[in-house]
Amino acid sequence: MSRFWSPLVNDLVPYVPGEQPKMANLVKLNTNENPFGPSPKVIEAIKAELNDGLRLYPDPEGEALRETIARYHGVVPEQVFLGNGSDEVLAHIFYGLFQHGEPILFPDVTYSFYPVYCGLYKIEGKPVPLTDSFEIDPEDYRQPNGGVIFPNPNAPTGRYLPLEQVESILQANPDRVVVVDEAYVDFGGESAITLVDQYPNLLVSQTLSKARSLAGLRVGFAVGHRDLIEALNRVKNSFNSYPLDRLALAGAKAAYEDEAWFRKSCDGVITERERVTKALENMGFEVLPSKANFVFARHKEQSGEALAKSLREQGIIVRHFNKPRISEFLRITIGTAEQNDALIRGLASL
Amino acid sequence: MSRFWSPLVNDLVPYVPGEQPKMANLVKLNTNENPFGPSPKVIEAIKAELNDGLRLYPDPEGEALRETIARYHGVVPEQVFLGNGSDEVLAHIFYGLFQHGEPILFPDVTYSFYPVYCGLYKIEGKPVPLTDSFEIDPEDYRQPNGGVIFPNPNAPTGRYLPLEQVESILQANPDRVVVVDEAYVDFGGESAITLVDQYPNLLVSQTLSKARSLAGLRVGFAVGHRDLIEALNRVKNSFNSYPLDRLALAGAKAAYEDEAWFRKSCDGVITERERVTKALENMGFEVLPSKANFVFARHKEQSGEALAKSLREQGIIVRHFNKPRISEFLRITIGTAEQNDALIRGLASL
Repeated sequence: MSRFWSPLVNDLVPYVPGEQPKMANLVKLNTNENPFGPSPKVIEAIKAELNDGLRLYPDPEGEALRETIARYHGVVPEQVFLGNGSDEVLAHIFYGLFQHGEPILFPDVTYSFYPVYCGLYKIEGKPVPLTDSFEIDPEDYRQPNGGVIFPNPNAPTGRYLPLEQVESILQANPDRVVVVDEAYVDFGGESAITLVDQYPNLLVSQTLSKARSLAGLRVGFAVGHRDLIEALNRVKNSFNSYPLDRLALAGAKAAYEDEAWFRKSCDGVITERERVTKALENMGFEVLPSKANFVFARHKEQSGEALAKSLREQGIIVRHFNKPRISEFLRITIGTAEQNDALIRGLASL
Repeated sequence: MSRFWSPLVNDLVPYVPGEQPKMANLVKLNTNENPFGPSPKVIEAIKAELNDGLRLYPDPEGEALRETIARYHGVVPEQVFLGNGSDEVLAHIFYGLFQHGEPILFPDVTYSFYPVYCGLYKIEGKPVPLTDSFEIDPEDYRQPNGGVIFPNPNAPTGRYLPLEQVESILQANPDRVVVVDEAYVDFGGESAITLVDQYPNLLVSQTLSKARSLAGLRVGFAVGHRDLIEALNRVKNSFNSYPLDRLALAGAKAAYEDEAWFRKSCDGVITERERVTKALENMGFEVLPSKANFVFARHKEQSGEALAKSLREQGIIVRHFNKPRISEFLRITIGTAEQNDALIRGLASL
């Protein structure tokens, strides 16, 4: 600690992202990246922006991209908020919509950045236990709160909450913002964006890092009622006017203009997910039903930590969380067929 | 306002960036962009990153870029903090280093984002009047404060504070962080980065948007004592793990590897600045001595607002601030020789 720090800095417990190892030839199944690359149209669109124009500031409102996303999802551009990855969008949500002097509810097993945002902004967070089968029970979200947030599908469990049950949480909290973090929704879930015109308290966040294969480009967004979007814009415009660079804006737009590539990519992940699930089950794993681009699995006999370590020795990296309730699980990103074969062989050899 | 907003959102007064007009053929001298494009090596480096690798997250620590900047400035990588434009860096500085229950000091005429950050984080800001000649007087910064920040050269005045005087502010505030925002330093100033090993309370921020011609890429950084950098890393890692995308990291690194292009670009701006200054003086303007890539000038007889309006009708956009003390001034970005000729002709015709 240092006398120069704002006192709150002492207490910060930062988020720890999955490792980005610098060694080559690893089977990297630890950060839920898409095994298939982005659409060639994305590459082309970025190339077209790659010129002297970089000397100029980007459009601070990202209008063209907002229009594209709005059209894609059947809303108007004023219902779309852009950010430098969905993590930035979530940070602004916590700051601009979650400070009401009551605790923010989120699952006890979930994206570990939520409690970090709470720590950053001195907001109380209240973890709500998942059921014994690691499901969200909407009944548990009928209690006083300053806001609700959960991923759907949830991470790292991969479990999906059907939209009727999302609605039940929305209906139980008419005076609080309910955020559905849909980072993984395209791998088999149905987006709650179809509900935003019906529920003024619903905010849906998505990212281009997963299904659109653009983790390296840092683009995320939120869709909801204009009032919610206005709060986010006020925070954003008091923080950083230009969060998205020219290349990211162009590439993200092109990603939405290649639906065929997107479908093929998602279908490829889903097919492999079902294959990996069966193979793991055959080897004695319990695999939670997943609608994400990863599976969450524990072996009946072997410890999660030991398995992760043994895989690592073979150059296969998966994610293990040393946390209550889930320390026996591995979170395994679905890779290419070759990567998944390597994983299956690696586990079979143990 | 909405019942869903965090109450502080009601009071936010966001920053208003200079207009990014969408019309073609404008002479755009309003947002201090560099008239010369980025180095061709930047374009090449980004092209080399433009592939399937975009599916992977970038290095959250931006190690390669931090090493390059550290080497360039004669410090170690642990003294360098990267952000999504220097605006994001400044936001994290206000949050992580400026919350001490005492007012933050900055000039009354300065970068208008500083009071916005104060509003965002509920920090008291205390504007310190510039002298009658629009200079910073270090003596005015000998008063209780929670931190000090000023651009050097200052914006929108363009006036530069010699390093001995920066040191005098540092010496007067040994227990507070003094931030020197050097967005424009390469156009004739000397960087205070040479002083960071001597003053643990000094933090210097820079951007690649101006002298490096990369406003469209969003990269900024701060250099200072490791303790100060650690505070910023804690805040950043509690906010967004990956603020810089793969293309921005690669392009920024390449920008530091083409010193010849950088020098030529800065020299070109300086030469044109001196020519524009003389031309404006010949037309009856008072021009403040500038070490930036813009000049700040008022006409002896004609109003700043009227001049800005007339120029606009000719397709020439400059920035006019409707603010106390400076409402008669125009802030004119130095453009290419052709753009500057258009400006001079435009003013001569009025």
